[in-house]
Amino acid sequence: MKILDLLFGKPLASSEERAEQVGPSAGLPIFGLDALSSAAYGPEAALTLLIPLGMAGVYQIVPVIGAILCLLVIVYFSYCQTIEAYPHGGGSYTVASENLGAGAGLLAAAALMIDYILTAAVGISAGVGALVSAVPSLQTHLLGLCLLILLILTLVNMRGVRDTGVVFQIPTYLFLGTLLIVILLGGVHVLLGKGHPVPVVAPPKLPPATAMLGWWLLLKVFSSGCTAMTGVEAVSNGVMAFRDPRTKNARVTLTIIIAFLIVLLAGIALLCRFYGIGATDPNGKGYESVLSQLTAAVTGRGWFYYVTIGGILLVLSLSANTAFADFPRLTRSIAHNDYLPHVFLLRGRRLLHSHGIYALVFFTATLLIIFGGVTDKLIPLYAIGAFMAFTLSQAGMVVHWMKNPGPGSKWRMAVNGVGALATGVTLLVVLVAKFRAGAWVTALLIPLMIFLMLRVRVHYSRVRRETNCPTPLRVDHLEPPVVILPLDRWSRITEKAIRFALAMSPEVIAVHVESEDSKKSICDEWDNMVVAPLEKAHHAVPQLVQLQSPYRFVLAPVVDFILGKEKELENRQIAVLVPELVVKHWWENLLHNQRANVLKLLLLLKGNQRIVVINIPWYLQR
Amino acid sequence: MKILDLLFGKPLASSEERAEQVGPSAGLPIFGLDALSSAAYGPEAALTLLIPLGMAGVYQIVPVIGAILCLLVIVYFSYCQTIEAYPHGGGSYTVASENLGAGAGLLAAAALMIDYILTAAVGISAGVGALVSAVPSLQTHLLGLCLLILLILTLVNMRGVRDTGVVFQIPTYLFLGTLLIVILLGGVHVLLGKGHPVPVVAPPKLPPATAMLGWWLLLKVFSSGCTAMTGVEAVSNGVMAFRDPRTKNARVTLTIIIAFLIVLLAGIALLCRFYGIGATDPNGKGYESVLSQLTAAVTGRGWFYYVTIGGILLVLSLSANTAFADFPRLTRSIAHNDYLPHVFLLRGRRLLHSHGIYALVFFTATLLIIFGGVTDKLIPLYAIGAFMAFTLSQAGMVVHWMKNPGPGSKWRMAVNGVGALATGVTLLVVLVAKFRAGAWVTALLIPLMIFLMLRVRVHYSRVRRETNCPTPLRVDHLEPPVVILPLDRWSRITEKAIRFALAMSPEVIAVHVESEDSKKSICDEWDNMVVAPLEKAHHAVPQLVQLQSPYRFVLAPVVDFILGKEKELENRQIAVLVPELVVKHWWENLLHNQRANVLKLLLLLKGNQRIVVINIPWYLQR
Repeated sequence: MKILDLLFGKPLASSEERAEQVGPSAGLPIFGLDALSSAAYGPEAALTLLIPLGMAGVYQIVPVIGAILCLLVIVYFSYCQTIEAYPHGGGSYTVASENLGAGAGLLAAAALMIDYILTAAVGISAGVGALVSAVPSLQTHLLGLCLLILLILTLVNMRGVRDTGVVFQIPTYLFLGTLLIVILLGGVHVLLGKGHPVPVVAPPKLPPATAMLGWWLLLKVFSSGCTAMTGVEAVSNGVMAFRDPRTKNARVTLTIIIAFLIVLLAGIALLCRFYGIGATDPNGKGYESVLSQLTAAVTGRGWFYYVTIGGILLVLSLSANTAFADFPRLTRSIAHNDYLPHVFLLRGRRLLHSHGIYALVFFTATLLIIFGGVTDKLIPLYAIGAFMAFTLSQAGMVVHWMKNPGPGSKWRMAVNGVGALATGVTLLVVLVAKFRAGAWVTALLIPLMIFLMLRVRVHYSRVRRETNCPTPLRVDHLEPPVVILPLDRWSRITEKAIRFALAMSPEVIAVHVESEDSKKSICDEWDNMVVAPLEKAHHAVPQLVQLQSPYRFVLAPVVDFILGKEKELENRQIAVLVPELVVKHWWENLLHNQRANVLKLLLLLKGNQRIVVINIPWYLQR
Repeated sequence: MKILDLLFGKPLASSEERAEQVGPSAGLPIFGLDALSSAAYGPEAALTLLIPLGMAGVYQIVPVIGAILCLLVIVYFSYCQTIEAYPHGGGSYTVASENLGAGAGLLAAAALMIDYILTAAVGISAGVGALVSAVPSLQTHLLGLCLLILLILTLVNMRGVRDTGVVFQIPTYLFLGTLLIVILLGGVHVLLGKGHPVPVVAPPKLPPATAMLGWWLLLKVFSSGCTAMTGVEAVSNGVMAFRDPRTKNARVTLTIIIAFLIVLLAGIALLCRFYGIGATDPNGKGYESVLSQLTAAVTGRGWFYYVTIGGILLVLSLSANTAFADFPRLTRSIAHNDYLPHVFLLRGRRLLHSHGIYALVFFTATLLIIFGGVTDKLIPLYAIGAFMAFTLSQAGMVVHWMKNPGPGSKWRMAVNGVGALATGVTLLVVLVAKFRAGAWVTALLIPLMIFLMLRVRVHYSRVRRETNCPTPLRVDHLEPPVVILPLDRWSRITEKAIRFALAMSPEVIAVHVESEDSKKSICDEWDNMVVAPLEKAHHAVPQLVQLQSPYRFVLAPVVDFILGKEKELENRQIAVLVPELVVKHWWENLLHNQRANVLKLLLLLKGNQRIVVINIPWYLQR
């Protein structure tokens, strides 16, 4: 347990739970990390698709990001209302379930689970992408680095929220500070250079244009860029974590986050355009992230460059942490409605829903391995889940206002309606534009997950129906069970089993299978060793049944005998005593037949309600 | 079971056992296959080491084989005496154990097990070598072909001896017939060509000499050639399989086998010398076995060539069968003396010691995979086991004659003594000459196996001592056990468990752990559902104990409670009832916590003789 304590911290008592009450300055890193870090891969995802256009592509990034910013503002207003309406936390799953019904709730659940897993995967892989841009020699260890960071995040998170809070503030403010300086400095250079700034370190030359801009390509670019909006819903999920006045604090935090995000996205887009910075091939050699090129172009590759890249790496990796915080909460809510296994309800040694973390880590690692840790391959899967959650959440809000009419509810309904429409249309665009590139995976996974969740629910309902017992304990037929006791030869193990059998019931049937490998049979010693002392003590004597086994099977005749007895004796419980040798070392098990275990398994498979198996363990002393 | 029947045949009743009684003509294929097939790889193994000598090397093969034939004759006389002295089968293990003590017996046991495993591996790989010589395009599938043949042999052998007898006769006589024709024809050609026969198909040109003949090389060549003698002991192992007059029939069979072997070895050696046929690089491209070259040189590559190669392939593969027949018998004998796990004593559905076959297949496959199915790499490991068994067997015979003096026993002692000396010296030569090439593996494995066998014996003795019960059943303290019953909430499962507990003992303690994830606790319903009906029926009411669990561990408090009770109640049995949900489909287990299983495991690990675990299964109906 010492190692566990060291890695994961000492167990926490339920009474040690402490409500985390944060204000905007502490809330920004916790809930804003995911949204802000999107600035690091959203524009890059859009620029990557523009590579074939050469320099002409770089010019297109400004209108695309502009469109995304408009969408962002709509979503911002929409979420402000969700925060007010759901002060106990209005995640998409809650809002959709409550207002649109169980079906929409499941859709949101599936979309959100996928979204969180991708948040973790994309955060980590983009962080490693930043690191690889700074230290190109690490390029070959992409996947290994991703999995290493996943491991570190897992360990940190297994310790629990209390220890993770502080870790976030410094990198978040470092990230914001350095990037804002880069944007500011870059802006000054652009102004001084009259639109033609001279880069300190020239970005890699853009390849010559090989394609023309078309509507289809523009749609794809927009879809990719939309990943910059992921994570915006985090504040509305976690309203209850803010200190009073709760909704106001939450709204202020959301406002700050969105404001920063707008500055970052607009700044990056404009600087890319003026410095002529495009994306580099994410699968190829010489890959360098857009933010790395930008920072190097504005400030050169001095210490400031490395601090900036360090901030980006940290924030991206930590943004994966949003998934660690929210995914277990989400699975807990879903499991609470019986749609996921109940293990997700349990809280582990550090007051966390540990099984949610295990599931998240498992699926994130799987994704990273399948896609080799390359962000660009993960992006097409990403936006779907997020935008489906946006849409459902806001459509749910529209219904919410319909159900709860009040002053201004028409106006609010309109705001959420515009939000739902905008994100819904974007969802369709993303789905169509990214379908072949990977969105089909998400589109397939969502119905599959819904199907599985429904099956889980059906199972739990069935179990509850079958085991539900509305009547009090029946007190009829409480006579002792008939005990059946398979024996081979007389030994201390046998003696213990017979004694236990006699102690629990007056009706004991000893069964012996004649088989060629038993050198010395119990039958030879039965009269002397068992019958004689019992008769002397005027105790009931067990019956001894000998079973023939022409084919040398030992267990089959015993199972047949037990099932036969069970048919013969109606209304009686049958207890099968299985003597079992417990060894000290695992390898010693190889030296003993595992018949006791196989018999137990067979009886479990072929048995029924009236047959009960009892292990009589015999512990070897050394 | 249908598929099992099809693959392995229907189960055979013990009463269906039929003593296989053979004469020399049927005994020759059964017991001679291993020895005769050695002719296919023994000379080749010697020639392979002579490759660096070029044509000069080929001349050396005749004296080397001559020396081996002398040794063979000595061993022959020696084994004739073993057959007479041990008419019930005198394998090396039996002879060495009986006459030289348990230590020598174990040495023989280890040597023989290794020998048999290598017999299987070398037989198969040499057979595939013959096939690859005829169809060079199969060269790349060497290992795959080896494993395929191993699989076929396994299936054939799992059906049992009765079906394998006939399969052997045709290939054996085909092998002998074709090879004798080749030798005869070749001899005629040599005589007609006055020592310079013209090959029909010229063998590959020998490489130029790159080394000189030295004593060390000659020793290594001799050691490799000695593999030609493996398998000679088979008849002495199986004397009881012959029909009366048993010893005479066995001796006649051995004589025929040795005579054929001498003709084959001498013929091959002489023809190689006169036709100038050497070995080809066994690891390289263009590998062609010596027998393939020889047959092609004498008869050309017509239908006769392919029949001959087919015979060699079949016989080599089937020679591996000797191992399948003898290895399980050997492990059975060793297990009978408690030196191997007792599973080797059991006979399977087809009256075979199936676990011996499993072990043989496992180790053979391992060897083939490690050495890539190349015969030449396996050869250095091979002869050691065989010659150690020869030596121990004959040394044992010397002692046997000392213990049983009679007419002519001095003379017999001398014969066996010479045999022991000759094979013992050869063993040393092989060990030294082949040590670096692979014999060290065998030299390491033998002491390791002896160590393991001793440990196994120690374990069985200890278990026997600990469980041995010389006294009759104790009839004191036969009062019912105290039942401890962990419960969570009221359900049919709970009802069943409580009913069973009440049926087996008047003293029942229900235990409930307060934990946050149990929505509805048993405590709320205890009075109504359990206490009330029992009091009404004037039945004893179980005690309900509530355990606190500040750290949310559910099982630890229960285990602690049980262990505490066990300390408190001396001389009483404690029965722990574990209600358990039995689902219909394996995946449904994922939806239920496995606490029942973990509790059972914990109690097995931490428990002791007085704690007994009882599963109360609740079967879901659908």
